[in-house]
Amino acid sequence: MPGDVKRRSAKTGLPPGSLIHIGEQHSATTRITLCVYDDTGFQEREVETLEGVAVPAGEAVTWIHIDGLHEVRHLEQLGKAFGLHPLTLEDILNTEQRPKSEDHGEYHYIVLKVFHQDAGGALIPEQVSIVFGRTWLVSLREREGRLFEPIRERLRVEKGRLRKGGTDHLAHALIDVIVDSYFTVLDRIGERIEGLETALIGRPSPTTLRSIQTLKREMLLLRKSAWPLRELLGNLDRSESPLIHGQSALYFRDITDHAVQVIDTIETYREMLSGMLDIYLSSLSNRLNEVMKVLTVIATLFMPLTFLAGVYGMNFRYMPELEWRWGYFALWGVMLAVACGMLIVFRRKKWL
Amino acid sequence: MPGDVKRRSAKTGLPPGSLIHIGEQHSATTRITLCVYDDTGFQEREVETLEGVAVPAGEAVTWIHIDGLHEVRHLEQLGKAFGLHPLTLEDILNTEQRPKSEDHGEYHYIVLKVFHQDAGGALIPEQVSIVFGRTWLVSLREREGRLFEPIRERLRVEKGRLRKGGTDHLAHALIDVIVDSYFTVLDRIGERIEGLETALIGRPSPTTLRSIQTLKREMLLLRKSAWPLRELLGNLDRSESPLIHGQSALYFRDITDHAVQVIDTIETYREMLSGMLDIYLSSLSNRLNEVMKVLTVIATLFMPLTFLAGVYGMNFRYMPELEWRWGYFALWGVMLAVACGMLIVFRRKKWL
Amino acid sequence: MPGDVKRRSAKTGLPPGSLIHIGEQHSATTRITLCVYDDTGFQEREVETLEGVAVPAGEAVTWIHIDGLHEVRHLEQLGKAFGLHPLTLEDILNTEQRPKSEDHGEYHYIVLKVFHQDAGGALIPEQVSIVFGRTWLVSLREREGRLFEPIRERLRVEKGRLRKGGTDHLAHALIDVIVDSYFTVLDRIGERIEGLETALIGRPSPTTLRSIQTLKREMLLLRKSAWPLRELLGNLDRSESPLIHGQSALYFRDITDHAVQVIDTIETYREMLSGMLDIYLSSLSNRLNEVMKVLTVIATLFMPLTFLAGVYGMNFRYMPELEWRWGYFALWGVMLAVACGMLIVFRRKKWL
Amino acid sequence: MPGDVKRRSAKTGLPPGSLIHIGEQHSATTRITLCVYDDTGFQEREVETLEGVAVPAGEAVTWIHIDGLHEVRHLEQLGKAFGLHPLTLEDILNTEQRPKSEDHGEYHYIVLKVFHQDAGGALIPEQVSIVFGRTWLVSLREREGRLFEPIRERLRVEKGRLRKGGTDHLAHALIDVIVDSYFTVLDRIGERIEGLETALIGRPSPTTLRSIQTLKREMLLLRKSAWPLRELLGNLDRSESPLIHGQSALYFRDITDHAVQVIDTIETYREMLSGMLDIYLSSLSNRLNEVMKVLTVIATLFMPLTFLAGVYGMNFRYMPELEWRWGYFALWGVMLAVACGMLIVFRRKKWL
Amino acid sequence: MPGDVKRRSAKTGLPPGSLIHIGEQHSATTRITLCVYDDTGFQEREVETLEGVAVPAGEAVTWIHIDGLHEVRHLEQLGKAFGLHPLTLEDILNTEQRPKSEDHGEYHYIVLKVFHQDAGGALIPEQVSIVFGRTWLVSLREREGRLFEPIRERLRVEKGRLRKGGTDHLAHALIDVIVDSYFTVLDRIGERIEGLETALIGRPSPTTLRSIQTLKREMLLLRKSAWPLRELLGNLDRSESPLIHGQSALYFRDITDHAVQVIDTIETYREMLSGMLDIYLSSLSNRLNEVMKVLTVIATLFMPLTFLAGVYGMNFRYMPELEWRWGYFALWGVMLAVACGMLIVFRRKKWL
Repeated sequence: MPGDVKRRSAKTGLPPGSLIHIGEQHSATTRITLCVYDDTGFQEREVETLEGVAVPAGEAVTWIHIDGLHEVRHLEQLGKAFGLHPLTLEDILNTEQRPKSEDHGEYHYIVLKVFHQDAGGALIPEQVSIVFGRTWLVSLREREGRLFEPIRERLRVEKGRLRKGGTDHLAHALIDVIVDSYFTVLDRIGERIEGLETALIGRPSPTTLRSIQTLKREMLLLRKSAWPLRELLGNLDRSESPLIHGQSALYFRDITDHAVQVIDTIETYREMLSGMLDIYLSSLSNRLNEVMKVLTVIATLFMPLTFLAGVYGMNFRYMPELEWRWGYFALWGVMLAVACGMLIVFRRKKWL
Repeated sequence: MPGDVKRRSAKTGLPPGSLIHIGEQHSATTRITLCVYDDTGFQEREVETLEGVAVPAGEAVTWIHIDGLHEVRHLEQLGKAFGLHPLTLEDILNTEQRPKSEDHGEYHYIVLKVFHQDAGGALIPEQVSIVFGRTWLVSLREREGRLFEPIRERLRVEKGRLRKGGTDHLAHALIDVIVDSYFTVLDRIGERIEGLETALIGRPSPTTLRSIQTLKREMLLLRKSAWPLRELLGNLDRSESPLIHGQSALYFRDITDHAVQVIDTIETYREMLSGMLDIYLSSLSNRLNEVMKVLTVIATLFMPLTFLAGVYGMNFRYMPELEWRWGYFALWGVMLAVACGMLIVFRRKKWL
Repeated sequence: MPGDVKRRSAKTGLPPGSLIHIGEQHSATTRITLCVYDDTGFQEREVETLEGVAVPAGEAVTWIHIDGLHEVRHLEQLGKAFGLHPLTLEDILNTEQRPKSEDHGEYHYIVLKVFHQDAGGALIPEQVSIVFGRTWLVSLREREGRLFEPIRERLRVEKGRLRKGGTDHLAHALIDVIVDSYFTVLDRIGERIEGLETALIGRPSPTTLRSIQTLKREMLLLRKSAWPLRELLGNLDRSESPLIHGQSALYFRDITDHAVQVIDTIETYREMLSGMLDIYLSSLSNRLNEVMKVLTVIATLFMPLTFLAGVYGMNFRYMPELEWRWGYFALWGVMLAVACGMLIVFRRKKWL
Repeated sequence: MPGDVKRRSAKTGLPPGSLIHIGEQHSATTRITLCVYDDTGFQEREVETLEGVAVPAGEAVTWIHIDGLHEVRHLEQLGKAFGLHPLTLEDILNTEQRPKSEDHGEYHYIVLKVFHQDAGGALIPEQVSIVFGRTWLVSLREREGRLFEPIRERLRVEKGRLRKGGTDHLAHALIDVIVDSYFTVLDRIGERIEGLETALIGRPSPTTLRSIQTLKREMLLLRKSAWPLRELLGNLDRSESPLIHGQSALYFRDITDHAVQVIDTIETYREMLSGMLDIYLSSLSNRLNEVMKVLTVIATLFMPLTFLAGVYGMNFRYMPELEWRWGYFALWGVMLAVACGMLIVFRRKKWL
Repeated sequence: MPGDVKRRSAKTGLPPGSLIHIGEQHSATTRITLCVYDDTGFQEREVETLEGVAVPAGEAVTWIHIDGLHEVRHLEQLGKAFGLHPLTLEDILNTEQRPKSEDHGEYHYIVLKVFHQDAGGALIPEQVSIVFGRTWLVSLREREGRLFEPIRERLRVEKGRLRKGGTDHLAHALIDVIVDSYFTVLDRIGERIEGLETALIGRPSPTTLRSIQTLKREMLLLRKSAWPLRELLGNLDRSESPLIHGQSALYFRDITDHAVQVIDTIETYREMLSGMLDIYLSSLSNRLNEVMKVLTVIATLFMPLTFLAGVYGMNFRYMPELEWRWGYFALWGVMLAVACGMLIVFRRKKWL
């Protein structure tokens, strides 16, 4: 997170609307996919440039998907083609946005976060922007990936709702995929939490604590992205924009339910992690107790015996016991009796 | 809980409205019970299939109850018969729903959670869906059980309010049974909490801590299902739907009171469990104190004595005390005096 | 509390409006007191049954007070006489209600909790119901007691506001007495908190912790009953019911102020108890520190000395010091010097 | 605080509006100061009784200030003179009020708390009531003091805003002085917090903990009085009463800003005190660690040496080392080596 | 913070609107910069006094920037020139303001906080006031600095939006710079948090704790200034003042997004710091455990051995073992066996 703020702070003092890509470059090249579809057909092709693209006439839907944000000129062409406000373009490039939806009249702008997990399981956020007008939709990701492949697949084969619907239907489908991807992430985190719980019952170590803290921080990160989802989707559901048709609202409400489920799960995980911290701390206390009991038992057992041995090691001229025939063996008896008595007391106290 | 998310994440990428049962299959067969009643009569029978069912004409109420959700074809027939929206059907099958009520104009859709306890006392949530139109009500459970038997019994014998009322009355009766079932669950949890408190006053062990954490987690689970009840029932109470008659509102408000009581009890239990955690942790500290006192008393008692014995075990050529006639016995006297003095000090400090 | 839920759960499955008294029977007999008063006169008598009671005609106010809820027939007669809704009757008998006020048009129904303290100081909640129409008011308690005696006394002697006012004035007077009774309870709890604080400064024991936890739980109980008071009284204050006259609102707002004061005091006590828990836990740590210091001082003092004594107890053939004339006394000198040095170090470290 | 509740509970059962002064008597005599001023002049005198006072005619403002509430007859005269509601009079006398403002149409009633500090620095709350109509204002304090002296001074000399303004201006000036007095109190508390911080860095003792807890409790007390200020002032600011002129609203908003600053400071202090508690508790742990390290170092150093000395103190007939010429000195060498080795290990572990 | 309150409390009793500069004097001299610009040109000069300044006629924008608040006469001249309310002037001088925006009809008054970091990294807040009417804007800082230099630079060279826009555009640009400066501060704090995390994984010391607490307190300070930003900017965004044009709202909403991001980061840092406190405390426990294990291992190893040595140092006349030829070596064997057995046990318990 400090890194995000660092990159963000580098823009200080520039006029708003300056098109500078902050965020690391995740894909070597920019890949632009262009789909045009309506009830009757579906075309799909990759293009090199957005030169010449314009608001499509007619009822067919044009979906432009861009992987990679580091080539600013595509953004400028997009802005010109669809009349996007400079601030919208700036927000698309500034990958530290909070999820939000903005109604710009002619178009809707939606920013979302999607999460990937690297080899070590660490969460990597990626920003996805969706801009849609009446007959066009542009989606933009920071990195290449197959996130929206299922949608494209459905467009290719399906003759159903999605092909018949407008851009709001497509937007809904994209957001649905994104919200569903949270379940995948939460699923893996759930498995790590289960692993930690097993570790806690066994022999927790400072590593366990560190894992708990790492997970807590990831839940913070997820939460920061998931909480605004509810508001964002509520806005779309209640929107009076002509771009969103009545029956779409029902579908947006359906994703809202999913988002609420995501938030609930995040909050549950957070409380579980807090509980695990308590268990970890009390296990430290328990172990200290255990160690101290061993020490106390040993000390309590041998100190009196050593004292007795010390007494009969003294060199007083007149010590009658030393002269006794069975003195030595009698002392062993006494020492054994003392030791056994101690052990019985300890057993009674449940220390052994 | 991680399991839930796992199953949920398996649906990622499917179009919304896809009828797939997520959740474990709890009953071997699907059992469908069909009741038709009005003020004058009551009929009840089991059917194999919902083929041919349709919105009933006339004023008699048709109540279809389905145990088991894994046979998707029944759902499809239901959807066709009563004109249910695909998203409603999907929600019925997706058993990870949050409790909610939806007004679809022609029908109301209500999802609730009911809790069972397995042999070990662990909570198992089950989803119950209730859909009702003007003359028909469909209730669906994941598993077979006698939860709604008392309602059926009242319909069979009673000539009163329930038989005279419409589907909103029946829905109210079903929800009432479900909310009441929370009291049963809370009752058993209350007994376990009492058991834990006795254990805490006695000799708390790491098992006690684990039980507290388990209960805390179950309270989280219950809470997630109970909190939305208030909103859900408030919606029904304030509903302006023609499906809900004026005087039903009073009854829904009555269940709201019960739901608030459930939530209050859950919150109280949560605070009690937090308090028990504090007691557990402080009991660990107390026990450590106790152990350390024993160690300190023993060490403080025997170290000086062992030192004295060591002194008179030295081999200096000239040690006058060693030659004294009663030196040995005098030393014993000194050692006893030292020990008694220590014991008096400890008693004063309340360590013994 | 678990007991409450238990009794509540016993009602599961019964139709709503079933008149069953849940709650323990607190009074052997039911005692019914009937007062009729207006500006000019006051009559008071005890009756055996409510047979024949009806909504009084004219302007005189009829106040029926019932001690003891276990005889259901009185409730049924009440219901018939004043046209009470079955749910109201059920709520009166169900002594696990949350404080609330309901406007039923013809009458107002108010439930409140009042607290008693048993010999050991434990809080015992009691439910008080107040139902009033234009010319009649019924108050019901679970147990016999002198709670409302001051009101009756004022009615007997006073020629003032209360005799001139309507049923809303009487209701106000009764609620005022109940809210004031919270101050008495809080006063006694305040004394117990003060006692605990003295104990904490002295020598806190696990009993102290248990007392803190008991008080915390009682604050939870009180809070659950006090928080709804504010809403309840706010409802009465803002009520547009013809049963509540304009100038009564001012009086209800006055009790609201008292209720807010009660809630404030409860929250303050809760924070004080949390602070006391911190003090208790840190006093455990402090005591452990104290014990460990004693152990460390003793061990550090005697271990080097015992070692020295051990050295000169060795049997090497050639140990020059042993032959010295003043060797023994020189060693005593060394040992005293070591001990004094240690003590000075400890004093510098403030361990003694 | 328990004392407050105690005194409050003594009023239980009395009719509302009973004029009894609860609260300790803080001033031996009641002092009544009467000022009359308008744009052109200012008169000031002390009076013995409020007999004959009445709502002043004309535009001049009459300000009556009363120090001491224990003489109820003055209140009764006030009530009669300015037509105050019995509940207002009761609230003035009941010094356990929460800060609030009430619009009674003909007059405004405002209650505030002001804090004094006794010799030991403990906070003592005092209730100040302000009642004002169109041409008169009455202010009442529990004890004599110079709190309002600056206002009187400004009235005497100033020819400005205050003399020209109405009673709302005077009320504003009085409230301003009261809110400003919170800064003085917070200033002193801030100094005590700084002192505690220094103590925490040095050698915290249980006294430090007790001071933290005392301060936390005082912050609770202040908070209870400061939070309602915001609402109270907001009410005055938004008031549509003809008693409050448009431009006064701006001044009330200005005090609201100050009140928010007071609340912010209180919350900051609360968080600082919580942080100090954490530091205190961890300093206990740190000290325990320090003590235990000393013990461990000493024990680990001398136990092996004492063992070695013990070995060569044995009386076996055949122990070759004892016969060696330099055995004794060789052993000293070994023991020194062991001790030095240990010390090196400890230094590596940073225990020394 | 206590210092702020101290300075604030010094003003008690003065009439509102008194022009006294509270706050330390940060710059030796007051520097006044005056810019006049419109679409076609830009002039900039430093002036000595504001004598003769007046509301500019025409459409050109006049921007007066003042560094240093200690010379009250400039404020008085400003007040006269632009008709500022005495309370506005007082607020500008009182540098303990909470961020807020006030619509005074003829002008808007905005107060913000900007943070500097001294050599040690400690945060130093500075108050920035912005007042703007239709054709003039005055900005005031406590100290000299280059904070607004980028804006001036853009005005000098740019022919774009800023030069064409009105005072609301300039105000927006200034606020944007200020909000962006928070990212710089958070960036540095993020680095310090990262440093602390490394320290925590290594060897945390009480200094680490103190650094955590210092950072927590700085987050409190930042938070107090950042939270009101959201409300402040929301007010400007929704403002219906003629001073703020429709398209500016979009830009203010854009800064709101940044402010929300600042607040999110602050809250995240706060949670991270809380987590670090947990890690610190548990590392103390861990270290105690480690120390105690060393002590226990040493004691458990040597106590039995010392006891055995003691036994054979006794002087009983008849102790057969002492006479054995290999007794001494046999005992060494036994002692080695005991020691090895102990070590194996410890290894099994994972204590070594």
